[in-house]
Amino acid sequence: MKQAQGRLTYEPAGPGLTEFTDDVARWLAGQDITTGLLTVYIHHTSASLIIQENADQSVMDDIETFFMSLVPQDISLYTHKPEGPDDMPAHIKGALTETSISIPITGGKMALGKWQGIFLFEHRTHPRPRNITLHVVGE
Amino acid sequence: MKQAQGRLTYEPAGPGLTEFTDDVARWLAGQDITTGLLTVYIHHTSASLIIQENADQSVMDDIETFFMSLVPQDISLYTHKPEGPDDMPAHIKGALTETSISIPITGGKMALGKWQGIFLFEHRTHPRPRNITLHVVGE
Amino acid sequence: MKQAQGRLTYEPAGPGLTEFTDDVARWLAGQDITTGLLTVYIHHTSASLIIQENADQSVMDDIETFFMSLVPQDISLYTHKPEGPDDMPAHIKGALTETSISIPITGGKMALGKWQGIFLFEHRTHPRPRNITLHVVGE
Repeated sequence: MKQAQGRLTYEPAGPGLTEFTDDVARWLAGQDITTGLLTVYIHHTSASLIIQENADQSVMDDIETFFMSLVPQDISLYTHKPEGPDDMPAHIKGALTETSISIPITGGKMALGKWQGIFLFEHRTHPRPRNITLHVVGE
Repeated sequence: MKQAQGRLTYEPAGPGLTEFTDDVARWLAGQDITTGLLTVYIHHTSASLIIQENADQSVMDDIETFFMSLVPQDISLYTHKPEGPDDMPAHIKGALTETSISIPITGGKMALGKWQGIFLFEHRTHPRPRNITLHVVGE
Repeated sequence: MKQAQGRLTYEPAGPGLTEFTDDVARWLAGQDITTGLLTVYIHHTSASLIIQENADQSVMDDIETFFMSLVPQDISLYTHKPEGPDDMPAHIKGALTETSISIPITGGKMALGKWQGIFLFEHRTHPRPRNITLHVVGE
């Protein structure tokens, strides 16, 4: 049994979903692990992770619209105001989605379903770089 | 340290929660792992996983009702329409719940709390078979 | 490769967020693991886990307020009534947040982002003791 860690960094142009499945797959292909468990971890509280359908952009758009409507960017609703109207909703959307996702590895690849992609879900209006750590254990 | 993977498949009759804790426990009992970590992973984006109270059917009913109300099956709210009014809400409910859950193994069994059960949360009106991968690492 | 398990127990005075990052860090420091994966698991369905910003109490207050508003403690909305008006909302809030979180370990420490803390999210009005299991695998 062995393990490895990697790092990915993205700087989204604005709020929304960015798929990065291929970057994870490329990193994993260099780790010589046939069977195991991959964990994807994001080091932020105003951006998060989800696994979602990657076949149709309209799915991603509707997800973003839903979360914008569920958690309004109306600063009068929040007591935490110093970082602007998009900050507190970003933390709440982070709490409603994922900070870590673990995916089995089978036959040297992530055992993703046919339509599953791994997405960075950026919640801030003016994002900074977002760091993600990959950890794999297996053999 | 060793690892193993298994597969479970369910075809729910319709939307709602299906507990499958016992199937996972039976699979785990055959793996000869006393201490470790079990990960449950669902290969779909319109069905998901949750751990919830399994003692009273009314809890499961209220959870389903809440999510139906939070994410209405009203196609006019979504731009992704080709798969029908239940499809886009299914993806959103998937994003709000879990694709993977990791559970410690203690004394050869999942260290579930007294009232915890593992549930498949089906979000589609006419579901197809749903595949779940189990991964365990430990000794 | 080796593994270890630990146990933490908290009894919150009432609903809300309790950070316990330092207790996890202290436990981890005694495990002699430089690189690996830590999983935090809560054994309850009416309290849950989130990773959130720990720099400003107002962020935690706003998160609690948002969830109280999203899932009202109005017993007329639920069919599961025997445990009081706060019980069914507690289960729903649990379903919307996390039962398990996995965090990479780098350089002997949890690879948390600068502002990330691990929180127990208590949803009941009169909580009882809450048990959390820690599992680490690595070397």
